[in-house]
Amino acid sequence: MRRLRDVGEYAWIARFVRDLSSQRRGARIVVGPGDDAAVVRPGRRALLLTTDTLIENVHFRAGWVSPAALGRRAFRVSVSDLAAMGGGPTFALLAIEAPPRLAVGHLDALVRGFRAAAGASGAALVGGNLTAGSHLAITVALLGEAPGRIVTRAGGRAGDALYVTGTIGGAGLAVRRLRAGRRGRLPDPPLRLRAGRELAPFAHAMIDVSDGLVQDVGHLCRASGVAAELEAASLPLALGCRRALGEAAPTFAATAGEDYELVVAMPPRREHLAARLSPRLGCRLSRVGRLVAGPPGVRLRDAAGRVLALPRDGFDHFA
Amino acid sequence: MRRLRDVGEYAWIARFVRDLSSQRRGARIVVGPGDDAAVVRPGRRALLLTTDTLIENVHFRAGWVSPAALGRRAFRVSVSDLAAMGGGPTFALLAIEAPPRLAVGHLDALVRGFRAAAGASGAALVGGNLTAGSHLAITVALLGEAPGRIVTRAGGRAGDALYVTGTIGGAGLAVRRLRAGRRGRLPDPPLRLRAGRELAPFAHAMIDVSDGLVQDVGHLCRASGVAAELEAASLPLALGCRRALGEAAPTFAATAGEDYELVVAMPPRREHLAARLSPRLGCRLSRVGRLVAGPPGVRLRDAAGRVLALPRDGFDHFA
Repeated sequence: MRRLRDVGEYAWIARFVRDLSSQRRGARIVVGPGDDAAVVRPGRRALLLTTDTLIENVHFRAGWVSPAALGRRAFRVSVSDLAAMGGGPTFALLAIEAPPRLAVGHLDALVRGFRAAAGASGAALVGGNLTAGSHLAITVALLGEAPGRIVTRAGGRAGDALYVTGTIGGAGLAVRRLRAGRRGRLPDPPLRLRAGRELAPFAHAMIDVSDGLVQDVGHLCRASGVAAELEAASLPLALGCRRALGEAAPTFAATAGEDYELVVAMPPRREHLAARLSPRLGCRLSRVGRLVAGPPGVRLRDAAGRVLALPRDGFDHFA
Repeated sequence: MRRLRDVGEYAWIARFVRDLSSQRRGARIVVGPGDDAAVVRPGRRALLLTTDTLIENVHFRAGWVSPAALGRRAFRVSVSDLAAMGGGPTFALLAIEAPPRLAVGHLDALVRGFRAAAGASGAALVGGNLTAGSHLAITVALLGEAPGRIVTRAGGRAGDALYVTGTIGGAGLAVRRLRAGRRGRLPDPPLRLRAGRELAPFAHAMIDVSDGLVQDVGHLCRASGVAAELEAASLPLALGCRRALGEAAPTFAATAGEDYELVVAMPPRREHLAARLSPRLGCRLSRVGRLVAGPPGVRLRDAAGRVLALPRDGFDHFA
């Protein structure tokens, strides 16, 4: 009998998405399963739908993050999928599994943190569910809209330049330190709604970096039918990550995950816009490589052009 | 420090919903948190949003239900909240927490069961999430619409007759037997989309019976600012429940939960329609009592008019 740990999260999802894609889609489903968010059209207006879960002892441990920051984190991790399509959130549902021993004040602070984060992004918490369980688990469903073009993972073409917002490696380093028992807090995921919205009109494809740059660029490559070349020297490393890891920082940052930055594939003719757009994004925008023709896959090269060996592509729940 | 088990699920939710209601609602939120589903209006069209979670060893145990039936159950339990407003589902998101040891075939069958149930109700599974965890947990988010009037819990008035669809007590008895170690299966929750849609134009208020008739009628009473009188002799008891429990069947069925039938408050002037509507509902429709003026609360009376003592109102995750 094959078990989930033998197959892995992404292989299972990929197979299931193929299975679903073979179904008749219908005019009301613009983007089905397999992208950052689904795009549906129940009426005239296109709506974005996405769901994500944070689980205690999987995505965080007690003490890594305050209750309010955990609520904020749950919102931002989910909203990142909408940002990666050029959209933003309008309504949120919050389903919580909580152990009966959980302090009421903890739960209150968590939900208030979620609400405040949602409100700050123009979304309202309109419903939810609370159920007993053995650990804390937070599942968010977001309904969203895109003011303009909706960008999927699938539009990347050979020749496109790859850009990354903000910096990477900082959250991954924090997780590594916390796992090793050092004191500290998980940093807040960045909010890239504005960046996603500003970049969408010019992007061929976008994805958010949740499970590691190499892994998520790999998803974009598979959806777009191209390969990617990333330059280690160009990665926008978080300062703390560069300082702590030195030469090992690029490969660590490229595979650590938890960044929630956006990766954008921009056609060459739009590249001159990147510099002009930059001040409007609210964050850095760094050119980190390009898409090339070839079977889907991601290579990370050093300054001499050598392909760097990676410890892993990124995070897989079951691998 | 107060813990969740000291406060209880419903008290926590009630307090939180009050807290949220004090916020400015805005034109885009028609029904906010606290009802069966939220009703939002991102464009011209009103949309329903709801979320629900099934957790292993809380809502079911391995062996109580086949993987496909569990997927179907997850869909039906969620869709029941839309039926209780007179709506139906259009799009579904499925977030699964699964232990790495889970058989892939089990997960496949679960998701196929969900998809088949969604498809049979006119809804498409458009996205989801899969994450590792210590147990199986299934969180569903549904987007829905109502073809006509949307009915909340809040419109009940003194004098309204209370009706219940289908039968109650059957699923609760199955749970009791399974918990006691007897062999068997959890019955499929009924699908009351058609009943909800047909009853909505004539109902003052509706709610689905998930945690026990008395408890859910109590929610309707609190939302409507009325009390309820239920007649034990009028309850539509599942045949197996009546046979197995005899005289104890009404109080058991009124508090057992897992029925997923609808409770409908109908104004007296509409009562003559109940008989006429019945053939179109796809299930029985039984008059079980009425709403009366008074502080919110539910009394179950025997044929002699005596108030029956209840072991509990229904299911509370933390009580």
